[in-house]
Amino acid sequence: MGFAIIGSALATPDQVVTNDDLTQFMTTSDEWIRQRTGIERRHVVQTETTESLATDVAHQLLRKSGITADELDLILVATMSPTYTMPSVAATVAGAIGAHNVMSLDIGSACTGFVAALSAARGLATVRNDRYVMVIGAEVLSKILDWHDRSTAILFGDGAGGVLLDMQSAHGAYLGERFITQGQDGQKLTAGLTGNHSPFAVPIDGDPYFRMDGHAVYNFVVKTAPDLITALLAQTHTDITDVDVVVFHQANQRMVEQLANKVGLTAAQYPFNMDEYGNTAGASEPILFAELVASGRIRPGDKVLFCAFGGGLTAGAALIEY
Amino acid sequence: MGFAIIGSALATPDQVVTNDDLTQFMTTSDEWIRQRTGIERRHVVQTETTESLATDVAHQLLRKSGITADELDLILVATMSPTYTMPSVAATVAGAIGAHNVMSLDIGSACTGFVAALSAARGLATVRNDRYVMVIGAEVLSKILDWHDRSTAILFGDGAGGVLLDMQSAHGAYLGERFITQGQDGQKLTAGLTGNHSPFAVPIDGDPYFRMDGHAVYNFVVKTAPDLITALLAQTHTDITDVDVVVFHQANQRMVEQLANKVGLTAAQYPFNMDEYGNTAGASEPILFAELVASGRIRPGDKVLFCAFGGGLTAGAALIEY
Repeated sequence: MGFAIIGSALATPDQVVTNDDLTQFMTTSDEWIRQRTGIERRHVVQTETTESLATDVAHQLLRKSGITADELDLILVATMSPTYTMPSVAATVAGAIGAHNVMSLDIGSACTGFVAALSAARGLATVRNDRYVMVIGAEVLSKILDWHDRSTAILFGDGAGGVLLDMQSAHGAYLGERFITQGQDGQKLTAGLTGNHSPFAVPIDGDPYFRMDGHAVYNFVVKTAPDLITALLAQTHTDITDVDVVVFHQANQRMVEQLANKVGLTAAQYPFNMDEYGNTAGASEPILFAELVASGRIRPGDKVLFCAFGGGLTAGAALIEY
Repeated sequence: MGFAIIGSALATPDQVVTNDDLTQFMTTSDEWIRQRTGIERRHVVQTETTESLATDVAHQLLRKSGITADELDLILVATMSPTYTMPSVAATVAGAIGAHNVMSLDIGSACTGFVAALSAARGLATVRNDRYVMVIGAEVLSKILDWHDRSTAILFGDGAGGVLLDMQSAHGAYLGERFITQGQDGQKLTAGLTGNHSPFAVPIDGDPYFRMDGHAVYNFVVKTAPDLITALLAQTHTDITDVDVVVFHQANQRMVEQLANKVGLTAAQYPFNMDEYGNTAGASEPILFAELVASGRIRPGDKVLFCAFGGGLTAGAALIEY
């Protein structure tokens, strides 16, 4: 079984919101946000949806790879911000591109969702004998942000990215993975609450917005992610200097630098794009990956390490050969 | 690789809402609902949540199988009604039962979600070499029902069910599956809309409630599901008379009878429990399965066919040996 990524693409909303734009809503400054997070701007939907961004990516993937929609066997979408919980984003994408023979499903694991979806794609495709598989991460986080909460509103953006896999190619490989869940701290990072107002229920208090104990999440990531990477490298007999590119979840530049230093990565190994997009949760890694392929920074034969962390709390890492 | 179901369990809210109770909210009658749908009552949460029901199931699964939480490798939860989109229900369950070494993720495919999660569990466990895997379906649909819309409010209920798999047992087998997506008709059955009220967006109209074109969904199911079952039986070289039990998604008794007749199933092959629970979406099949195992209707060595259909629009079927 191969694991060839034969296409990668991204789609972001046209509208750009700068740090200065945010000063209309809250007491903050461009300098403060840049220094703390590395974010300069983010893309925010006007009329686009999670489904329309994901569909844009899917159309590009078909065009780039020369595959027709009817050749697809499986579509997975990682998202924590679907427009609907039913239909799934994946089913909506299937309908929009005219894929009639697919299994479709959404993967929910917050910021770790795209790596989890890559893993699920590999598992499903292997046992089902699927050939062409789409794995997309798509988010419209702007609709579940409290735009008056400066501890969260400055951090997130909207977008989608994805890859098309040929699981029967001789090229590429999925070398290994590690996932961890620290569910007892799940309430340190929450979003998307659906209240309960049935006439039979005790109402659930709360709002749908992102709520974060930044300190707890930071500590989780800096403690957990390095061990995950170290274990994955050991398990795959890979020296850290042999990793060509690390695609980190684009959460916070300072935090990523700290965890990367702990495992001995050099700055040249892990590019950032959060200056342009902010944190797009499950979309952040495929957006960065697509940019790095397009720019030639990721090339055939490269060892690429995906590492993500966030809501759950969860963390995951996967090592592939592109 | 085996596929032994070493435990099954269900959890439903204590509160029972009868058809007569619904006449407080809408013009309907017990007789009308029973005749059209086969539903007599449903369980509806007061203080329970999707997460608490799923956790109840998880605790039972550990108790019944004698497995400890730390032995679990993977937890999948099929749901279209999580309390939060982050953390996932699966991560919350992991935290609540003290499972520290697991990969956790939610599967979104509406009523087809549990069969899709079974398939994903098998795929992930096979390539990851996982042994103990929990697959749970959990829903609180009552919070996304419009209790004044009698075309939908009478149909649904809350609950959770699940199974614990030993993927390295010599017993049991996953014999085959078929999945289909008809995404172009996704808007015929929607729920869980998250509106967009960011200061940068054009607001999305609509509400979070179940909206259904009942005629379109009925036609999809009666047309699609029989072909799916026929193809799965052919692919697995199984005669329909050799299927011991069919666990249908408990959507509507009349519709299920019609599709079952089309493929030549006898009434004794497909038990119902929607009289007691209504349609619990992704939870309906594991609830029915757990009841049938508990009552002795499903026994070791039985061939069990799962068949589900609904939002997406999607349909899926899987044949296992228990």
